[in-house]
Amino acid sequence: MTNKTQFTVGKEPFYQAQGDEVQLYEAAYAARLPVMVKGPTGCGKSRFIEYMAWKLNKPLITVACNEDMTASDLVGRYLLDANGTRWLDGPLTTAARIGAICYLDEVVEARQDTTVVIHPLTDHRRTLPLDKKGELIEAHPDFQLVISYNPGYQNLMKDLKQSTKQRFTAFEFDYPTAELEADILSKETGLDVAICGKLVQIGQAARNLKGHGLDEGISTRLLVYAATLIKNGVDAKAACRMAMVRPITDDADIRDTLDHAIDASFA
Amino acid sequence: MTNKTQFTVGKEPFYQAQGDEVQLYEAAYAARLPVMVKGPTGCGKSRFIEYMAWKLNKPLITVACNEDMTASDLVGRYLLDANGTRWLDGPLTTAARIGAICYLDEVVEARQDTTVVIHPLTDHRRTLPLDKKGELIEAHPDFQLVISYNPGYQNLMKDLKQSTKQRFTAFEFDYPTAELEADILSKETGLDVAICGKLVQIGQAARNLKGHGLDEGISTRLLVYAATLIKNGVDAKAACRMAMVRPITDDADIRDTLDHAIDASFA
Amino acid sequence: MTNKTQFTVGKEPFYQAQGDEVQLYEAAYAARLPVMVKGPTGCGKSRFIEYMAWKLNKPLITVACNEDMTASDLVGRYLLDANGTRWLDGPLTTAARIGAICYLDEVVEARQDTTVVIHPLTDHRRTLPLDKKGELIEAHPDFQLVISYNPGYQNLMKDLKQSTKQRFTAFEFDYPTAELEADILSKETGLDVAICGKLVQIGQAARNLKGHGLDEGISTRLLVYAATLIKNGVDAKAACRMAMVRPITDDADIRDTLDHAIDASFA
Amino acid sequence: MTNKTQFTVGKEPFYQAQGDEVQLYEAAYAARLPVMVKGPTGCGKSRFIEYMAWKLNKPLITVACNEDMTASDLVGRYLLDANGTRWLDGPLTTAARIGAICYLDEVVEARQDTTVVIHPLTDHRRTLPLDKKGELIEAHPDFQLVISYNPGYQNLMKDLKQSTKQRFTAFEFDYPTAELEADILSKETGLDVAICGKLVQIGQAARNLKGHGLDEGISTRLLVYAATLIKNGVDAKAACRMAMVRPITDDADIRDTLDHAIDASFA
Amino acid sequence: MTNKTQFTVGKEPFYQAQGDEVQLYEAAYAARLPVMVKGPTGCGKSRFIEYMAWKLNKPLITVACNEDMTASDLVGRYLLDANGTRWLDGPLTTAARIGAICYLDEVVEARQDTTVVIHPLTDHRRTLPLDKKGELIEAHPDFQLVISYNPGYQNLMKDLKQSTKQRFTAFEFDYPTAELEADILSKETGLDVAICGKLVQIGQAARNLKGHGLDEGISTRLLVYAATLIKNGVDAKAACRMAMVRPITDDADIRDTLDHAIDASFA
Amino acid sequence: MTNKTQFTVGKEPFYQAQGDEVQLYEAAYAARLPVMVKGPTGCGKSRFIEYMAWKLNKPLITVACNEDMTASDLVGRYLLDANGTRWLDGPLTTAARIGAICYLDEVVEARQDTTVVIHPLTDHRRTLPLDKKGELIEAHPDFQLVISYNPGYQNLMKDLKQSTKQRFTAFEFDYPTAELEADILSKETGLDVAICGKLVQIGQAARNLKGHGLDEGISTRLLVYAATLIKNGVDAKAACRMAMVRPITDDADIRDTLDHAIDASFA
Repeated sequence: MTNKTQFTVGKEPFYQAQGDEVQLYEAAYAARLPVMVKGPTGCGKSRFIEYMAWKLNKPLITVACNEDMTASDLVGRYLLDANGTRWLDGPLTTAARIGAICYLDEVVEARQDTTVVIHPLTDHRRTLPLDKKGELIEAHPDFQLVISYNPGYQNLMKDLKQSTKQRFTAFEFDYPTAELEADILSKETGLDVAICGKLVQIGQAARNLKGHGLDEGISTRLLVYAATLIKNGVDAKAACRMAMVRPITDDADIRDTLDHAIDASFA
Repeated sequence: MTNKTQFTVGKEPFYQAQGDEVQLYEAAYAARLPVMVKGPTGCGKSRFIEYMAWKLNKPLITVACNEDMTASDLVGRYLLDANGTRWLDGPLTTAARIGAICYLDEVVEARQDTTVVIHPLTDHRRTLPLDKKGELIEAHPDFQLVISYNPGYQNLMKDLKQSTKQRFTAFEFDYPTAELEADILSKETGLDVAICGKLVQIGQAARNLKGHGLDEGISTRLLVYAATLIKNGVDAKAACRMAMVRPITDDADIRDTLDHAIDASFA
Repeated sequence: MTNKTQFTVGKEPFYQAQGDEVQLYEAAYAARLPVMVKGPTGCGKSRFIEYMAWKLNKPLITVACNEDMTASDLVGRYLLDANGTRWLDGPLTTAARIGAICYLDEVVEARQDTTVVIHPLTDHRRTLPLDKKGELIEAHPDFQLVISYNPGYQNLMKDLKQSTKQRFTAFEFDYPTAELEADILSKETGLDVAICGKLVQIGQAARNLKGHGLDEGISTRLLVYAATLIKNGVDAKAACRMAMVRPITDDADIRDTLDHAIDASFA
Repeated sequence: MTNKTQFTVGKEPFYQAQGDEVQLYEAAYAARLPVMVKGPTGCGKSRFIEYMAWKLNKPLITVACNEDMTASDLVGRYLLDANGTRWLDGPLTTAARIGAICYLDEVVEARQDTTVVIHPLTDHRRTLPLDKKGELIEAHPDFQLVISYNPGYQNLMKDLKQSTKQRFTAFEFDYPTAELEADILSKETGLDVAICGKLVQIGQAARNLKGHGLDEGISTRLLVYAATLIKNGVDAKAACRMAMVRPITDDADIRDTLDHAIDASFA
Repeated sequence: MTNKTQFTVGKEPFYQAQGDEVQLYEAAYAARLPVMVKGPTGCGKSRFIEYMAWKLNKPLITVACNEDMTASDLVGRYLLDANGTRWLDGPLTTAARIGAICYLDEVVEARQDTTVVIHPLTDHRRTLPLDKKGELIEAHPDFQLVISYNPGYQNLMKDLKQSTKQRFTAFEFDYPTAELEADILSKETGLDVAICGKLVQIGQAARNLKGHGLDEGISTRLLVYAATLIKNGVDAKAACRMAMVRPITDDADIRDTLDHAIDASFA
Repeated sequence: MTNKTQFTVGKEPFYQAQGDEVQLYEAAYAARLPVMVKGPTGCGKSRFIEYMAWKLNKPLITVACNEDMTASDLVGRYLLDANGTRWLDGPLTTAARIGAICYLDEVVEARQDTTVVIHPLTDHRRTLPLDKKGELIEAHPDFQLVISYNPGYQNLMKDLKQSTKQRFTAFEFDYPTAELEADILSKETGLDVAICGKLVQIGQAARNLKGHGLDEGISTRLLVYAATLIKNGVDAKAACRMAMVRPITDDADIRDTLDHAIDASFA
């Protein structure tokens, strides 16, 4: 038997609202509208959903999507047992049964057509047909579907179909403002907020290189890594190089540009 | 044993006819002609079929097609059991046996050649050979096959073969007229019809952008989402952005154009 | 045990000969030469084979070919049983054993190289090696292989290999003459032959658009659909649009051209 | 237990030597050199090997190669049994054990790299490693490997690797001379040799079209088909169209050219 | 039961630090930050991780990634047992359970989207969902994830996604300095350091050819091979050709250039 | 239980050294360095390894690599048994356990990334992780890995990765000198050395056509075939055509050029 409490978010996740997104999400959840969260890598999309699950006190089932994921991975499959085959619900089915928020992370990674299985759960039917089992599940009243995706990222081969997109309300995220981001860094790591401000400044410089040699800006997560290392006694310049430059680029010019920005900040 | 009543549409679905499609469908069903419903995303194709199944009082079995769907997913397969293998009918086989309307939603998503399995069910034979079981099923007299597809959507790789198309009578759907659509919004959500009219107006503006930066127009479903949020107390502009703009575009210019249209409507 | 009578064509299928094809087929069958039937979608190829099987009083086993079809689907496979594995003959093997006419419909859909398995059945050997079972089947004296394909349809990727083609005698089909086609429509549906003639006229107009916006002409089957609907009381123009235009084109110009032809015919 | 006699060629196959190929094959077999037979579709390659197996009184195991064929299909596999898994030799393994001539027909159809499994059987080792069984088979002294392929046919994707080719001695076949071919037709069908000569004349005209609209010439097999139909009372022109033209071309111009040649011959 | 000690690095691996990488790694491990090691083939990345696991006294589980690796290969799968199916943890799951350092070697070889399964282990959640088992593993406090990759090597098809990269702190490795490398060679093989210096000199000459006919420089490993052969009595020039030239190039010009450099060094 | 003696090379293979390759191989084996043998088709690479295994008196396990080969084919897999699953070592695992020389023939045919599994066996670790079994094998002290490949043969899609190449010492082979090759032919077949010299002369002429219409030169093996046939009484010209020309080319010009060279030699 699936245990509902195992999916409960036990402790309040650290989340700083950037606007009215908490209230709007509550309204979407009240009407059980499906939700899409958009935004660049590491800007806090997953954290936001975790926070909302905690705030609404609903179980949260997260699925990290990938290209090899089949519909069966979401819906369930038969397993071989001592007494023949036994059905095992997939995470989407479990969420529909127990009334969880089901969060499909990086949904565009999944095969475009695999996403078709979520359609009947996202319209007035709110059902999930288990074709292989011959069962039609009516979603629990608390069930809600949430997907994330990174729009700067898609190519022609990998994009959500309009017939999928048009089943969701959408939230657009971006990196936090400089002040808020420094505050987040300081609160998460305990590092002095002034030093955090310097890290944010370097991060923003790097974000301006997006499209000019960098595929993506530096995520808040990497800034937190740098702050953590500095807090633990690592030299600030070494920490920045290791956490904020080396992971995101293999290009010598970009690397040198960012290294100089670091040297300038911590001169 | 498959239970026929589980596929009955219990409650009359909300459906507003746009023309004589209800009468024509009844004629097609009377002759058991296969039916194809064409039209853009979210214009009510699935709702129409659900309504007709309710009106004709026939069971409805819906299959959301996808690229990974094999012929076995439609027809059935052997499962391993304590006593060896056991055959499990697929949804198409079940429909043929119990006399249901079988609705293959977004059929072009299925592998083009998988659709070949429906051929003997759509001509004078009305049979379904279960090659793996060595059984030839004669379709129940009430059985009918229905497929949907979105013509604005196909590419060279994914289109129905003529030898499949030429087995169907076809219904072409479009978005409802402005008046009817506002009426639908108001009836479905309880929102004042005047505000609904404004939403429809914005929706129609967006539909004019199709082919000029938008792949598809805004569906009636997204308008219903916006109306629902407004009815639940969300600010109209925020509701429109969240339900009618953010889901359908990642392009900053298109987004700003639509946001201005919203600001103008709810100034 | 496979039951031969289940494959018998019980009732004489409706078939109107277009020339001497019945006599030529009888000669080919007398020498057990393999037969290929070529022609456009819905011109009556499958009906002809069904008719010949009835006339020759031989069982008929039809296989709708598709791209996912493996050699095992034709030949047979091992199934898991309570006592280990059990062999299940595929349709081709069954036909070779019981002396049926085996009709591989739309054979080009099958993987080109899968068709290699039919080679030893189509030359002087008339054998079918079941490699996986280690058995060599000698075909029953009544066995004959028939394949269909649509030459207007192939692309470079999908064509029969010459080493396959050169194992068959071939029949080339086309749409019936206007008079014959009107006669067929009237006989199949009971609709007045004059109205049937109008439908045929529209159909022939559409067939002239093949290669000029239409991939295929309108099949006799679709004309029968239209006649059926009119016979059942549907307005002739609505019936034609629904049965003869909407299924075959998504192009607005072609659609309008055909709609005008219909309006002109039933003015 | 595999029964050696089931692979014996019981009756002398009809074969007319074109040159000294019978003696050369005997020399190759005496040294157990692997043999490759090359030539166009239907020129008698398979018949020649069958004849040699009969003449040398060795069992013959023929495998029709195809793209889906895996190494396991040649070598063998484990099957599930009441007592667990049981090994089943593939045709190549059987041939190596019992000392048969193993004939891989149309070997280029097999995946290029699957053919690697035949390498250790074609050099001084004359062994076949059954990797999955952990067994190394020493080929029976009578074992010989023969492959066929059609050089006019290969594309860049499908050709034998040099490291495979250089393990074979090779025989190059072509269509028989006109006189010999007419003789073959007459002997196989009992049709008057003069009429057979006309068929050969038409066949040679068609062979001149190879590369000018025809992918391959007409095979001797198709000429035999035509002769058979005429012998059974079919009109000569109808027989030629049905057996020698319709199977090999879908092109209207080529078809008309060949039809005229037929009309001229049987005027 | 998995035995933790089997993954312990028993003996101190030979490792010469090139800078402060040991201290920085210790800081990253202290905060359990995920680590990426970048650098060319054979420069000592794997050796470094092995050394750190030994120094930190943590078990090390290494997975050589490859394109055929599925998520199941990392996470685990069900095996068939006498009593039905039995779950077997994959190496990543084992590492998460016992608190090992999990080292995914050449991670870009794995399917880009398979790497998505490591995401929840690399952020604040530090969890691994076993979707197929319906279990959510909380990583052991000692668990750390390390990946290696070679930036000079990627193509457009194979690169880590930014959403993966931005979960790691990164170390950039290069070949050691000439002096240090000669020292390493001498210490590993016992060969005179002066001769080792000559080998390093040749190696550096070859590294300058990278991008000018060589895809990669000569690794320290190949220099060690040459030193080993010379130490064992092989002529220096033959040893260099065999260990430092023939393995890395098939190009006659490059080969001659390097052979001349060898001749000059050992003249 | 795997029996070590079954892999012993019982009889001294015929091998004529071309230089100091035997001594260099012995030095490489003494240090257990992995070995790569490079060279054109049929120049004696496999024979050399067989000879060295005989000379060193070590078991030899040869694996003919192919594109369908998975890592499991090398390493091992679970088989289903009466008592559930049973592990079966693959050839690489067997070699590592019993201390054999493991020879991966034509390793580039294997999927590039499958070759990653050999990495831990080719560096200081000398281990083979059986991920699916959760076992880490330490290679037997006598174990050595050898791979062969043909450099004239690779394309962009199929080449060894540098990170694989740089794990091997390498031997470069070519066809023997004319004198030596004639000697080999004569010793292997008993044919007069003067005639053998003529065959070698023709072979060398053909090798000059490499890159000018021939993909590869004629291998020593084909010369041996020709010599064998002549020794067995076949006419020299017929033997040369059958063994040295027909197998390697389908091009009429090349064929005629080589036929003339044969006629000139045996005029």
